[in-house]
Amino acid sequence: MRAGIDLGGTKVQAVVIDDDGRVQGQERLPTPTKGDPSDVAAVMVRSVKTAAEQAGVETAALAGVGIGSPGVINSRRGTVTSARNLPNWEGSFALGPALTEGLGAPTRIDNDVNVATQAELVLGAGRPYRSMLGVFWGTGVGGGIVLRGKPWLGRGGAGEIGHVCVVIDGARCPCGRRGCVEAYAGRKALEARARHRHDKGHKTDLFKIMEKRGRDRLTSGVWARALEHDDKLAHKLLDEAVEALGAGVASTLNVLDVDAVILGGGLGLRLGDPYREKIEKAMMPHLFSSDNPPPFLMAELGDLGGAIGAALLIKLPKAAAAA
Amino acid sequence: MRAGIDLGGTKVQAVVIDDDGRVQGQERLPTPTKGDPSDVAAVMVRSVKTAAEQAGVETAALAGVGIGSPGVINSRRGTVTSARNLPNWEGSFALGPALTEGLGAPTRIDNDVNVATQAELVLGAGRPYRSMLGVFWGTGVGGGIVLRGKPWLGRGGAGEIGHVCVVIDGARCPCGRRGCVEAYAGRKALEARARHRHDKGHKTDLFKIMEKRGRDRLTSGVWARALEHDDKLAHKLLDEAVEALGAGVASTLNVLDVDAVILGGGLGLRLGDPYREKIEKAMMPHLFSSDNPPPFLMAELGDLGGAIGAALLIKLPKAAAAA
Repeated sequence: MRAGIDLGGTKVQAVVIDDDGRVQGQERLPTPTKGDPSDVAAVMVRSVKTAAEQAGVETAALAGVGIGSPGVINSRRGTVTSARNLPNWEGSFALGPALTEGLGAPTRIDNDVNVATQAELVLGAGRPYRSMLGVFWGTGVGGGIVLRGKPWLGRGGAGEIGHVCVVIDGARCPCGRRGCVEAYAGRKALEARARHRHDKGHKTDLFKIMEKRGRDRLTSGVWARALEHDDKLAHKLLDEAVEALGAGVASTLNVLDVDAVILGGGLGLRLGDPYREKIEKAMMPHLFSSDNPPPFLMAELGDLGGAIGAALLIKLPKAAAAA
Repeated sequence: MRAGIDLGGTKVQAVVIDDDGRVQGQERLPTPTKGDPSDVAAVMVRSVKTAAEQAGVETAALAGVGIGSPGVINSRRGTVTSARNLPNWEGSFALGPALTEGLGAPTRIDNDVNVATQAELVLGAGRPYRSMLGVFWGTGVGGGIVLRGKPWLGRGGAGEIGHVCVVIDGARCPCGRRGCVEAYAGRKALEARARHRHDKGHKTDLFKIMEKRGRDRLTSGVWARALEHDDKLAHKLLDEAVEALGAGVASTLNVLDVDAVILGGGLGLRLGDPYREKIEKAMMPHLFSSDNPPPFLMAELGDLGGAIGAALLIKLPKAAAAA
């Protein structure tokens, strides 16, 4: 058995999977919004313990614990540096060693987008393809690239499709640049755009829904509910997000021309197939191969994908893999 | 000895190279603007004959003739279909067989951008790198991608960096789409933009220079001369081109994160290093890895690069390659 943890800005998702990649235990806990990295590590330890209990295995007996993390990762040392959206995590924190201590199992860390892409490639919608683009539409917009069956990481920073520029001198992005896809489509940017328009007098129920649900931010669920209520501003902002995603994904495909596109991420999964279709439609006018577009699919592993992909970081001995 | 031909919209460039890739003969002829594909083939045959004569070799004794061509290429059959910018070349023409008949040597055809990229990788500025992006700024804007030491072609249509969208709902591109890099930066689009503004009363010497030089289009040389004359409209339009190229190349790098960028193409080579610098500067505000940008270099093989790359399509027997 192997464990995997998807460390997100909103939630910590842990799974324990068997040799065939089937989920035998899972636990989801809210990511601490206060405290420091060691508090986050403590929640991660707790989540794996519960998932392992469900799977009927001691954490010390796990083949290992994989971690999909935001921020800058040093896989060798197991450190995570300047993780956006995590509390007081500007500096470097030895997350791997902290979890090894708490769980008694070896750990391995990689980028959250890369592990989610790998999960879809090996066990999800990407199985039939040798090359693919994973589009993770959530707090930010991340891209995972697979070419010739292997992840393409470039010099370590490939796949930043959220920062493909779709409008020169366009909207300010949370990254500080202008006109990025994420400036229009990321959950964080969408919230800022909604708040700005709300403050300027645009009518919307987004913030009422947020409060009613006891949330302190516009989660994917809040956006989904606002759409159900036919909230005009929510529709308008998400339509702008779709336009930006369509242009950005098309531009990326014009460069890469991969076999398939797979949509995941918090917003992508929550808004689901109707929005997958909208993005695909918005992509077409910008797509060079519009007479032969690649399949544009939903991620199959849902919101466990990141954690499952993290677990796949733990390589099994050949005999076990064959069994 | 091997021959290579770069088939462009303006010129047919032939070279004959030896086993070490050194140019032993070369000929450049204008591409016919009238007639049909067989007239173009006849000019190509003539250019190789002259280059071979210079190199002191019979064309029938060549190891082969490589061709870098625009349009849709079927390498196996040696056909070129719907080649933009070539006369009456909407349909399919068996260019390879026509040249084999005219020269008595085997032929091989590939995409013009791919062969120029390969030339820079093997013999030019790309030698030190395992991954690179070739930016060919000419009549259109083409991109050649090398990853892990090999060309990346996707499903056959990768590298279309000229059709990365930099302004949603932006200027109309010759390809019919809106807001593409090429809509602002391609020589063909630049000419249309210049003519439009000239017709609207903007002052410019671009068309006077064109006529004085006996040209029927705004060649790279015409643009370069206009810059020397400090022509305001030429400066303004090229600055807009640079902005679009900067954003498009940055977006491409945000996706690929390759080891190096190499600038070539008719306009790129003619405007040279000052414009390479301008594009690099325009790229920085959009580049995700702006604290660690990849080297941005001029193509080293100049305007023979395409023809040399075409010659490299002809593989030498191992013994000759080692000698």
